[in-house]
Amino acid sequence: MKRNILIIGAGGVAQVVVHKAAQNNDVLGDIHIASRTVAKCHEIIASVREKKAMKVEGVLEAHALDAMDIAATKALIEKTGAQIVINVGSAFVNMSVLQSCIETGAAYIDTAIHEDPLKICETPPWYGNYEWKRAEACEKAGVTAILGAGFDPGVVNAYAALSRNYFDEIHSIDIIDVNAGSHGRWFATNFDPEINFREFTGQVYSWQNNEWATNQMFEVRQEWDLPVVGKSTTYMTGHDEIHSLSKNMGVPNIRFWMGFGERYITVFTVLKNLGLLSEQPVKTAEGQEVVPLKVVKAVLPDPSTLAPDYTGKTCIGDLVKGVKDGKPREIFIYNVADHKDAYNEVGSQGISYTAGVPPVAAALLIANGLWDVKKMANVEELPPEPFLGLLNEMGLPNRIRDGDTDEALVF
Amino acid sequence: MKRNILIIGAGGVAQVVVHKAAQNNDVLGDIHIASRTVAKCHEIIASVREKKAMKVEGVLEAHALDAMDIAATKALIEKTGAQIVINVGSAFVNMSVLQSCIETGAAYIDTAIHEDPLKICETPPWYGNYEWKRAEACEKAGVTAILGAGFDPGVVNAYAALSRNYFDEIHSIDIIDVNAGSHGRWFATNFDPEINFREFTGQVYSWQNNEWATNQMFEVRQEWDLPVVGKSTTYMTGHDEIHSLSKNMGVPNIRFWMGFGERYITVFTVLKNLGLLSEQPVKTAEGQEVVPLKVVKAVLPDPSTLAPDYTGKTCIGDLVKGVKDGKPREIFIYNVADHKDAYNEVGSQGISYTAGVPPVAAALLIANGLWDVKKMANVEELPPEPFLGLLNEMGLPNRIRDGDTDEALVF
Repeated sequence: MKRNILIIGAGGVAQVVVHKAAQNNDVLGDIHIASRTVAKCHEIIASVREKKAMKVEGVLEAHALDAMDIAATKALIEKTGAQIVINVGSAFVNMSVLQSCIETGAAYIDTAIHEDPLKICETPPWYGNYEWKRAEACEKAGVTAILGAGFDPGVVNAYAALSRNYFDEIHSIDIIDVNAGSHGRWFATNFDPEINFREFTGQVYSWQNNEWATNQMFEVRQEWDLPVVGKSTTYMTGHDEIHSLSKNMGVPNIRFWMGFGERYITVFTVLKNLGLLSEQPVKTAEGQEVVPLKVVKAVLPDPSTLAPDYTGKTCIGDLVKGVKDGKPREIFIYNVADHKDAYNEVGSQGISYTAGVPPVAAALLIANGLWDVKKMANVEELPPEPFLGLLNEMGLPNRIRDGDTDEALVF
Repeated sequence: MKRNILIIGAGGVAQVVVHKAAQNNDVLGDIHIASRTVAKCHEIIASVREKKAMKVEGVLEAHALDAMDIAATKALIEKTGAQIVINVGSAFVNMSVLQSCIETGAAYIDTAIHEDPLKICETPPWYGNYEWKRAEACEKAGVTAILGAGFDPGVVNAYAALSRNYFDEIHSIDIIDVNAGSHGRWFATNFDPEINFREFTGQVYSWQNNEWATNQMFEVRQEWDLPVVGKSTTYMTGHDEIHSLSKNMGVPNIRFWMGFGERYITVFTVLKNLGLLSEQPVKTAEGQEVVPLKVVKAVLPDPSTLAPDYTGKTCIGDLVKGVKDGKPREIFIYNVADHKDAYNEVGSQGISYTAGVPPVAAALLIANGLWDVKKMANVEELPPEPFLGLLNEMGLPNRIRDGDTDEALVF
């Protein structure tokens, strides 16, 4: 039984993680939050207090931390006695936080792949460039490290694992992520603009016919008719989970589709073509060195400010096609989340909510031993039922559309 | 008779000014070029040498100068013995260069209004905020200062003055500026992006029914059928010349229309709505203070690099409507310039060419005394015929469309 949580990061997703950890602190124990900007941790704590989210009385503390600094991160893990670290900080700190866990024995959970600030869209499989290189070290140290335990990657990987029960043979998994909500701004990204745009500036990798295929962003468009949110336009996008699912599922076609409105595409196209999404510094006429993408981030709305006005719903799920008992079959396993409901419960919008609840469910499964596997694992390598069962209770109900039926997934 | 020219600035327009001054150095005397970056002056000199543009042997020298520094500017005027200063530097240096001329007695010529780097789109009339405040000082010192002597403002002001000959009463002057050329890039501005975008980020001021009217940029659209370039889409835009013509012409309606393609409008709209055209600094997540507009400038193509690939033509002119002998009349006085011809002659594209030839014509008219008025003047306050006559010979032929006739304007 592992206890005491250290949450790294203090953005929109961290806000959800802290609230959900607080709601389960009878099991999880002490809760610590660490960020470069400690004031942001204090804001989250104030929000937890305001919502009276702590299930039982207990420790809830803020810490200043540069999570790129392994010595400092190890010292904080040791000082707090945290046995589980949930890393929802910037995508640049995965490797230093993971290393700190390996050296202290704490379990590690993250929700997105590691990125090098100076490299965009490395060669597939992305996990192979960084995380998986530490798999042996994790196993040797007996450290549990669960990679990509947000919604996508995360829950959609569990959907993929679960879908095996419905098929004799799976031909394709199409992961579809549609935000049909509205924030009411002319333009905003739903999470850190720097990370958001970086997702789409490189090549689009997909797994087709058992090999990597490449496309340009916004090159391949697909309409879907989805539960609740209805007809939705999506574009084929590179995404973390394709990189682990292609290795672990033995399925010949795995693709990711993200919903985009015309406004997003216009803004993205202009910024990208002008060079304003570049992570490489440019020099102004006055001689100042500046990274354009960081300036774009600075002028855009802070995603955490969008929550109060956000309305509408998200729909994220796996459309799985294959054969069962000699007949073609198609199922869609999915969740629909509501922005307003998320805000009312934890003060965040729905995108942060779907990303922030799952790592707390993963932490609970490490705490109770079910997922405390003492090695590195992507979510599809772990039993999906207890994870999805917990999420049903934690605010992310799962459903399955199978032929003409559409019903709750109950475990 | 004034002689010896100091040209301030070393951008695309300065390149044209230096070439044209070199072609007339028998009259203008020594030619000096000054810029913060002296290497750019040397590049222009190399281009003049390559084209063998100097009419007679003579002085052609480069100088490093911060034109915001009045003492340094005065010292350079004195050292070079320049009696005429052509200011085609950044829009931020007008007042310091003008002051240097007032204190040294040199004649002053510029091609655009002064701007405060931190203010965009001040209250009309724009000249009233800066230049005209020095009118009395010019007159007292007997200093000739010709404001806005490029094409627009400049030649179009002379067209307006000339149009008086064709009417008993003028009802409206619509200045139309269409660049029907193509630079072959995804996006680029034809001159300094910082100045270009600043022109359009504020309110659009126009002179209608004898008072200032305001609109938003891209709010008022107008199609015209123009000579040579044909059907052209323009938008009502604020522009320098409206501010002096409204005061000096006694015409109830004076508007400026600039041609824009869909691409320009899309890029401008995205950048403006995101806040990337702001001249006010923002702070990045890393704490760096940056002016977004300067970063946009840094990522865009340097306008001076567009010239070699530029093809097509520009058409700029005044559509004047009024009454002559009791009957309604409409004339269009205009110039058509060719990007390729400009490049072949002086190594610049057509936009720089149309802006850079007129101030040299103005310098010749100061040199020969016709425009050496020993006070401050906008172009419409000076006799237009000698100016337009010189331009006919200097590569900017003027034409008039009047009813069914379309012929060269000859003086």
